[in-house]
Amino acid sequence: MKEDEAKGRIIRLFNDKADSFISGEDMSAVLGFSRASVWKYVKKLRNEGYAIDAVSNVGYKLVSSPDKMYGYNILTGLETKTLGRKTIHYYAKIVSTNVQAYELAEEGSPEGTIVVAETQTAGKGRLGRKWISPDSKGIYLSVILRPEMELERISTITLISANAVVRAVKNICDLSNIEVKWPNDILCGGKKVCGILTEIKAQPDSVDFVVLGIGINVNALEEDIPPGGTSLKLETGQRVDRMDLVRSLLKEIETGYTTFQKNGFGPIRNECRELSAVLGKNVSVSQYTSVITGKAIDIDENGALVLEIGNGRTKKIFSGDVSVEKVRIES
Amino acid sequence: MKEDEAKGRIIRLFNDKADSFISGEDMSAVLGFSRASVWKYVKKLRNEGYAIDAVSNVGYKLVSSPDKMYGYNILTGLETKTLGRKTIHYYAKIVSTNVQAYELAEEGSPEGTIVVAETQTAGKGRLGRKWISPDSKGIYLSVILRPEMELERISTITLISANAVVRAVKNICDLSNIEVKWPNDILCGGKKVCGILTEIKAQPDSVDFVVLGIGINVNALEEDIPPGGTSLKLETGQRVDRMDLVRSLLKEIETGYTTFQKNGFGPIRNECRELSAVLGKNVSVSQYTSVITGKAIDIDENGALVLEIGNGRTKKIFSGDVSVEKVRIES
Repeated sequence: MKEDEAKGRIIRLFNDKADSFISGEDMSAVLGFSRASVWKYVKKLRNEGYAIDAVSNVGYKLVSSPDKMYGYNILTGLETKTLGRKTIHYYAKIVSTNVQAYELAEEGSPEGTIVVAETQTAGKGRLGRKWISPDSKGIYLSVILRPEMELERISTITLISANAVVRAVKNICDLSNIEVKWPNDILCGGKKVCGILTEIKAQPDSVDFVVLGIGINVNALEEDIPPGGTSLKLETGQRVDRMDLVRSLLKEIETGYTTFQKNGFGPIRNECRELSAVLGKNVSVSQYTSVITGKAIDIDENGALVLEIGNGRTKKIFSGDVSVEKVRIES
Repeated sequence: MKEDEAKGRIIRLFNDKADSFISGEDMSAVLGFSRASVWKYVKKLRNEGYAIDAVSNVGYKLVSSPDKMYGYNILTGLETKTLGRKTIHYYAKIVSTNVQAYELAEEGSPEGTIVVAETQTAGKGRLGRKWISPDSKGIYLSVILRPEMELERISTITLISANAVVRAVKNICDLSNIEVKWPNDILCGGKKVCGILTEIKAQPDSVDFVVLGIGINVNALEEDIPPGGTSLKLETGQRVDRMDLVRSLLKEIETGYTTFQKNGFGPIRNECRELSAVLGKNVSVSQYTSVITGKAIDIDENGALVLEIGNGRTKKIFSGDVSVEKVRIES
């Protein structure tokens, strides 16, 4: 972490002095490192893909940064208080960020610990499904949370995070058609751009920890992702800076999470209603052994989906796979 | 498991022919092993503490069995359908049966897998507390369950198991003053004789697995256990056969668990009421940051404890540490 911090500070300094050279002496003075240390870290950064010009008697200049989600790269400009502040575990390739984060949580890693990877060989989706993780073209991130909340409230963490993804994407991209398909998918123009997988270790009356896993298709192309999916690049026509997005995402998750802890589900509920891809639509919900159809009319005070199932009767849905039924055009 | 099965069958055969010799030839015929195999297993059993007489031209006789919870020893006479039927992992010493079972469950061990130990070096209690595990004087057992149930129903597993412990103890010991202190302790004459720790891995809408951990003070003496505790031996004045008790316990857990899955919490609820150490008494319940006092008047249809808190008002308790208040004698 010490080395990461040093590298992070050097990157920040380069960014502050964009496009101009900084002398080794100035860097040494500002950072409080020896000039030899500055040179050592510059070499390390070059090895990790940073293009840094070094000119004798002039100094150093950052020419370009690699598109890698190194911890210190995320930290540069991160505005959170807790998330990412302890340790960001970076992997070029990993089986699953959720599996890794779950193990770290079991070993006692604190709230806010983050696992991030460029690609996952067996990224996990809900109900044992897979998440395809094109290399360096998405955000594959898991966050350890240790909420003091009742077990039956845990599903709200998923909803809070889904809203946070939408806010973060809107902060970074010019996109308006991004919505939450209750409870854990984010759709862009009706296609899946992000999935959330919340995993829990608990006792009946206390939560040990939650691993919040988020997969976002950022710069993936059509051939990279499964049918029915899309990416932010495909939707906006532009490359999206993953680092900007991940920093915004962490900030928005933290905001949602602390709002919930202070003020309960009320404010989140309103946002769930606003951002919902399903309210007002006819949906069918697949559960273990049955399918329920109806019109989605509300998100209740606990985060459940309320369906109108005919004859004025309503039914609360706590879990299941929601499909929005195609609109029938009557002529 | 094959060797365990063979040893189990030999023990069963010895038990069937209690106190008489069986010829190697008869054993070989009944078991379908060669006489050399019979001799091989007899030697193994002797190494594990079984006293087996072998007389030339007469045969073998089991003189005594060790007081060890070997898997095949549990299997001999076990009447369950699922619990213990796949694998019983036996340890002379382990950190915690729950920790081990949790790892096995994560690796995919099926429902009914059991971990049992003679002693635990860091046995786990609820809320991070310790469970003291005197060597070979108790039952320290964890069971992997994979129930298809909603997360908010999981606390019923603890209640089902608490009832099962009481039934199992009553099957084996002549004890009437054994009761459940909601939700997870078993008391004998007001002193703790058993604790239950249920640990869960889940997603908000599905349970991956439950590890049900049970610690029972069986033959422990006063100096073996913490103040406020007791053992079945201390209460009955007699040594209790741990093997009989663990078999009865597994059978009773299975009965409760399958009853619940077929018929819901209704029948369990009635039993919870009958076996409760707290109903009808004034109690105080410590929760995260508060203490609630009142008279415990019922267990509700979801397993919550219902308190009468004055002025006819009631409050449902979903979690917390319950203390029964001392009866005030008014003169």
